[in-house]
Amino acid sequence: MSDQKYFQNITTRERAIFEGAITMGALFHQFVGTPVSIDSAPSLEKAIEESLTLQPCINNVQVSINREMLEKADNEYEYLSLTGDMLDVRVSSQYQEVNTVVRMHYIEELQYPLMYVEEVD
Amino acid sequence: MSDQKYFQNITTRERAIFEGAITMGALFHQFVGTPVSIDSAPSLEKAIEESLTLQPCINNVQVSINREMLEKADNEYEYLSLTGDMLDVRVSSQYQEVNTVVRMHYIEELQYPLMYVEEVD
Amino acid sequence: MSDQKYFQNITTRERAIFEGAITMGALFHQFVGTPVSIDSAPSLEKAIEESLTLQPCINNVQVSINREMLEKADNEYEYLSLTGDMLDVRVSSQYQEVNTVVRMHYIEELQYPLMYVEEVD
Amino acid sequence: MSDQKYFQNITTRERAIFEGAITMGALFHQFVGTPVSIDSAPSLEKAIEESLTLQPCINNVQVSINREMLEKADNEYEYLSLTGDMLDVRVSSQYQEVNTVVRMHYIEELQYPLMYVEEVD
Repeated sequence: MSDQKYFQNITTRERAIFEGAITMGALFHQFVGTPVSIDSAPSLEKAIEESLTLQPCINNVQVSINREMLEKADNEYEYLSLTGDMLDVRVSSQYQEVNTVVRMHYIEELQYPLMYVEEVD
Repeated sequence: MSDQKYFQNITTRERAIFEGAITMGALFHQFVGTPVSIDSAPSLEKAIEESLTLQPCINNVQVSINREMLEKADNEYEYLSLTGDMLDVRVSSQYQEVNTVVRMHYIEELQYPLMYVEEVD
Repeated sequence: MSDQKYFQNITTRERAIFEGAITMGALFHQFVGTPVSIDSAPSLEKAIEESLTLQPCINNVQVSINREMLEKADNEYEYLSLTGDMLDVRVSSQYQEVNTVVRMHYIEELQYPLMYVEEVD
Repeated sequence: MSDQKYFQNITTRERAIFEGAITMGALFHQFVGTPVSIDSAPSLEKAIEESLTLQPCINNVQVSINREMLEKADNEYEYLSLTGDMLDVRVSSQYQEVNTVVRMHYIEELQYPLMYVEEVD
């Protein structure tokens, strides 16, 4: 039983990029909206990392939730809903001999949390 | 600054039930779909508990992800997407002197993960 | 087959409030994060309304996504991720003779999209 | 203002695959868990298609929710939570002269809703 036959038409490098990208898109849309505070941020980061590392070809996920933005939560409930702007994420994928790092972080000049391939070799 | 004026038309007991119910609906729809395995289940349970406890009037959340269902994951990727059927959750809310426990778990005869008020006093 | 026995300990009015609240929490956490623009807002509003109306005891859901906020999307991608601040929602629940409207909208003085019981009778 | 500089290290073809993959991962994790029935499926399909088409480099999204699975909903509530197994999706991405179709559908022998590159040229 194998999924090999579905990936005949792309290169090893393309496969590694493909899997990293799926996982980054998944991460954003699964967890955005989650209530988060300074105190709960570590457990949320860890759960995001461990759950997304399960996906095919993913060997590491690093998530950093911006603590400065959490500190600024000045509503009386003292937490925020997680947004893409708070996230700095690195998803490491590997397929055969190719390793990639897909990155997402907020880029001021784009006013957008951009996802891109930070490393591939 | 306070939200008191928005809750004049309901009783103390109704408020406690209302807040517990919001949090249970939130929990289900935030986290269903998350990749999960035997190994990652503890960190996911903890993150769900800590994040949802932040919501108004919630003082405790207990989440148990069904390990038997995770063990049965017999696809080659060795993880599953979290579903409502795997979850047994207790959300404890308090408003003034009223405490509730809102529960969700899969009920065989209903074929449905039912949410209901397990305790209120 | 019925879920009646799980709701013996709450009143008819509490049941109607409970179901409205679950659905509002569900709505927020299911759809926050969805890409949305001026052009796609109508189909997203309709899908939210139709899907959440399926939940137990819900007979109507009205969703309005703030068009002014969408117009201000000045990044080069011309869309935003849906946030709670953009939403004005009314969930109508009915249980036996009791009708409720649970409302959510952003409240400036709270800096928070508050969920509350707008009507119950 | 442009994101070009972030994509110098990958080919045109890789960029098209990258963007298609992000959107497919996003789609799955945004919408899995949504209540859905035979009657509400069309509006949900349309909203998924229109919202995900907004993402960078995506020019078409086709979503089909399995009606047979919805018909089998034999709980008393007559709806289900959307799962990956119910979905057949094609995401079409374009970057410069390269077009791809990223596909997801449930594959019996893998017991898994596989995402793969169906077409690229």
